[in-house]
Amino acid sequence: MTDLARHVDGVALIDQHVHGCWVEAGDRRRFENALNEANTEPLTGSGFDSQLGFAVRAHCGPVLGLPKHVDLEAYWERRSQFDERELARLFLPGAGVSDWLVDTGTPGVADVADVAALSGGRAHEIVRLEQVAEEAARAPGDYAAAFGEILHRRAASAAGTKSILAYRGGFEGDLSEPSPREVAEAARRWRDCGGVRLEDRVLLRFGLHQALGLGKPLQFHVGFGDRDCDLLKANPLLLLDFVRQSAGTPIVLLHCYPYEREAGYLAQAFNNVYVDGGLSVNHLGARAPAFLARLLEMAPFGKVLYSSDGFGPAELHFLGAALWRKGIRHAVGEFVASGDWSEGDAMRVVDLIARGNAARLYQV
Amino acid sequence: MTDLARHVDGVALIDQHVHGCWVEAGDRRRFENALNEANTEPLTGSGFDSQLGFAVRAHCGPVLGLPKHVDLEAYWERRSQFDERELARLFLPGAGVSDWLVDTGTPGVADVADVAALSGGRAHEIVRLEQVAEEAARAPGDYAAAFGEILHRRAASAAGTKSILAYRGGFEGDLSEPSPREVAEAARRWRDCGGVRLEDRVLLRFGLHQALGLGKPLQFHVGFGDRDCDLLKANPLLLLDFVRQSAGTPIVLLHCYPYEREAGYLAQAFNNVYVDGGLSVNHLGARAPAFLARLLEMAPFGKVLYSSDGFGPAELHFLGAALWRKGIRHAVGEFVASGDWSEGDAMRVVDLIARGNAARLYQV
Amino acid sequence: MTDLARHVDGVALIDQHVHGCWVEAGDRRRFENALNEANTEPLTGSGFDSQLGFAVRAHCGPVLGLPKHVDLEAYWERRSQFDERELARLFLPGAGVSDWLVDTGTPGVADVADVAALSGGRAHEIVRLEQVAEEAARAPGDYAAAFGEILHRRAASAAGTKSILAYRGGFEGDLSEPSPREVAEAARRWRDCGGVRLEDRVLLRFGLHQALGLGKPLQFHVGFGDRDCDLLKANPLLLLDFVRQSAGTPIVLLHCYPYEREAGYLAQAFNNVYVDGGLSVNHLGARAPAFLARLLEMAPFGKVLYSSDGFGPAELHFLGAALWRKGIRHAVGEFVASGDWSEGDAMRVVDLIARGNAARLYQV
Repeated sequence: MTDLARHVDGVALIDQHVHGCWVEAGDRRRFENALNEANTEPLTGSGFDSQLGFAVRAHCGPVLGLPKHVDLEAYWERRSQFDERELARLFLPGAGVSDWLVDTGTPGVADVADVAALSGGRAHEIVRLEQVAEEAARAPGDYAAAFGEILHRRAASAAGTKSILAYRGGFEGDLSEPSPREVAEAARRWRDCGGVRLEDRVLLRFGLHQALGLGKPLQFHVGFGDRDCDLLKANPLLLLDFVRQSAGTPIVLLHCYPYEREAGYLAQAFNNVYVDGGLSVNHLGARAPAFLARLLEMAPFGKVLYSSDGFGPAELHFLGAALWRKGIRHAVGEFVASGDWSEGDAMRVVDLIARGNAARLYQV
Repeated sequence: MTDLARHVDGVALIDQHVHGCWVEAGDRRRFENALNEANTEPLTGSGFDSQLGFAVRAHCGPVLGLPKHVDLEAYWERRSQFDERELARLFLPGAGVSDWLVDTGTPGVADVADVAALSGGRAHEIVRLEQVAEEAARAPGDYAAAFGEILHRRAASAAGTKSILAYRGGFEGDLSEPSPREVAEAARRWRDCGGVRLEDRVLLRFGLHQALGLGKPLQFHVGFGDRDCDLLKANPLLLLDFVRQSAGTPIVLLHCYPYEREAGYLAQAFNNVYVDGGLSVNHLGARAPAFLARLLEMAPFGKVLYSSDGFGPAELHFLGAALWRKGIRHAVGEFVASGDWSEGDAMRVVDLIARGNAARLYQV
Repeated sequence: MTDLARHVDGVALIDQHVHGCWVEAGDRRRFENALNEANTEPLTGSGFDSQLGFAVRAHCGPVLGLPKHVDLEAYWERRSQFDERELARLFLPGAGVSDWLVDTGTPGVADVADVAALSGGRAHEIVRLEQVAEEAARAPGDYAAAFGEILHRRAASAAGTKSILAYRGGFEGDLSEPSPREVAEAARRWRDCGGVRLEDRVLLRFGLHQALGLGKPLQFHVGFGDRDCDLLKANPLLLLDFVRQSAGTPIVLLHCYPYEREAGYLAQAFNNVYVDGGLSVNHLGARAPAFLARLLEMAPFGKVLYSSDGFGPAELHFLGAALWRKGIRHAVGEFVASGDWSEGDAMRVVDLIARGNAARLYQV
């Protein structure tokens, strides 16, 4: 084992975008469906028959005391001997993460305090803008004022904000700041319709610009996700005009598959754009090294971040880290072997991506 | 040689999308032009100066008793000593294919019975929808009724249907089912203009929805093809709304270059979407392993299929199989070597792609 | 070292798209900003923290007598001991380039004669169309006549023309030839506004069709560049209709990142389309081999060209060649090792890309 490999294995990560893990019991169908991100219906095949499924068997099995590549029946049987909190206490600390930045926009899973307790690390909140909007819709009085009040209150102790605009019509079209009058009218219409599931473009744009005004890093779901998202409209290049208006507030492009090269270009083009391949890394399994190498094309090394985007099975919080360590070791190991990077450079870049960039960006 | 390599070499394939090979004599110009898919004019350079040309010399030469990498003069001279049926009797059995699914939409080549006889395997028809439309335009009486009658008659003994919508305006725009009245009007207009080469969007959409109603797998030409196709409009993500309307009828995305990652995403997102990299594999030659690896990113392993898309030179029916075996051995071999897959997993996935998925899907 | 490696190292290149290097002194900020192509603002991080920055330290350091991977302070200190002309006299000859095709559209750097003198090679002009337009706007009398006169005069001794349409609205929309009346009206409007920075689509289209009429190769900036360019609108597939109208005038697609596979497809589809990965190769550094391999997918080998797109630091003129030699050796070396290409094929393709294709195309 080389010094570089030892270094990669030892570095403590900041997981800069993650959700809670399950804390309540569920059946095998729930587990297998959680291994498929894109499909929103019950799977007709096995969720294990994918790069992610194979990666769970290869890398998570041993954490449960099983041999690598154990078959899925044995994996499920062994997993069923633990409750979800016990699984979290095995998998979360195993990730080697010091700080978790938890997007609290998805209910029914561990909250920020739970993630800290189950992992033995620190946890910080990422506030989801569309959730703030839905709270503001239910609040009395002026919508814009309510949104601003909730956002500032929640963000005071949070590390940043997050938008799922990709799931609410995508990035295409005007993303400029709407006028107060437009906001008021749109809010009235939305409240009249019940104020659930924000899809109104005016209010979505309003939320984004409120987040820009806050100055804390603003994360965007980009590319790969479930099929409610039109992947064509989740191309980060469609954010160009918005980024031009962003006046220095850090913008973090999450996941990015299959647009990781476009995202890297934006990270080179704008001082305030950052990229991260979380979620994709888990789903790519054995192909994660190829993806991570592509992510290291145009993006300056001070602009690349780590996350798992784990959600649901505690395996995913661990696996993101395990696959990232494996993949980055392979990718930068090749750059060293080919003589293009020194081993010292490689270690420094590993540290930047693992935690240095995120520590600076989120001040954690 | 590893057990895995032996396994890949031995598995009998189902070539799930192929055309007939030549059965009549032609000159060298015809041969060289057939090595370039995209250009529709006479080539100004040599058709051999490409990945496909090099692959023919490397892999097909030995089938004709020539050394690997023989120069193109010698290759052409040796090839000219055989007639096209003799070449077919050498190359088709050499592919190790048990079943050929033959798209009969292109005339002037071997028909389904010929492919079976020349290869010693079984052959099944894939009915091209645009050809059915053109038959219906020539039939007397109501167009929609004629289309339905021809489609059901031909499909009764066929394995599936195929659309070349990519060549008839692409996937952009509305692909919903048109009303009977719209169909009747569009058919009248088209028949008035002679009823050749279907480009009318209403009738193209009608054909697709008739095929959905049939329930048999519906294949789409996706991405790479000749330059009549606007590659921007052949992005499979543009099929999103159509797939949402497909109600479970299997949809097979063919070729997919350079959109193989987008296609793999759709295969993960929808239980009824399948992907296949045929045609691309032949044209990528030495780069086929990299392409096949990308095809194994997001697509579940139960959703990936094999085809050659061979058309014209019998070399292509053989080469598709040779390059696929070489490429998949390399791709899954790397997954095993890196510890992400077991060798048993790799063999099982090879079997699924080689034939298991197609056998289940087409019931052959 | 293999015969192939020796061959790649020894071949004299034609750098078919390059700009002048600096000839006047500048500070460290200028140098670091020149290592980032996409950003148009002062960098907040170090320009060295990128694949290009690492490649400069690895490959350019030794030219200045420094060890590989020297740290950036030491690199800058050593570089500062030379003036820009001295640096050019070290780096340009080191590239092993016999002929430089110099786009003279960017002021403030070495001109064509300077590049020849500093490198010891030959240099030829590439005339930038948008610059011709700006000269014509300042000329007296009819705009179209002035444009034609300037273009023919300058092009008489030039190797070809170049368009930066990608930076002037991109490739989307109508690119047909405008009528004389439209041109006259657009020219009048533009001259009334001062005639600076051509962005008028009519006049841009006029210039392109004048260049087609000239018959000399027409180069297009494609894809990756600075953020003034909307990367979505710099997809070469948007040039499809224009290429269909090009009547055989050679069209050269430059840079192409991240659209190198789309560009390769166009090179297969049209006898008169050529591709080149210059600029991208420098910025990809350790990832250049992967990019060059993708460029060798669909493009026939007679259609691929070499360039550095060096501009500013003389390092870039050298580094383009060094990374191309390293990358192509790796890419074609793999094709030979896998048995898909013979070593003789590989050498012949190297010669075509290094100089044979450009010599034929530009008659240099």
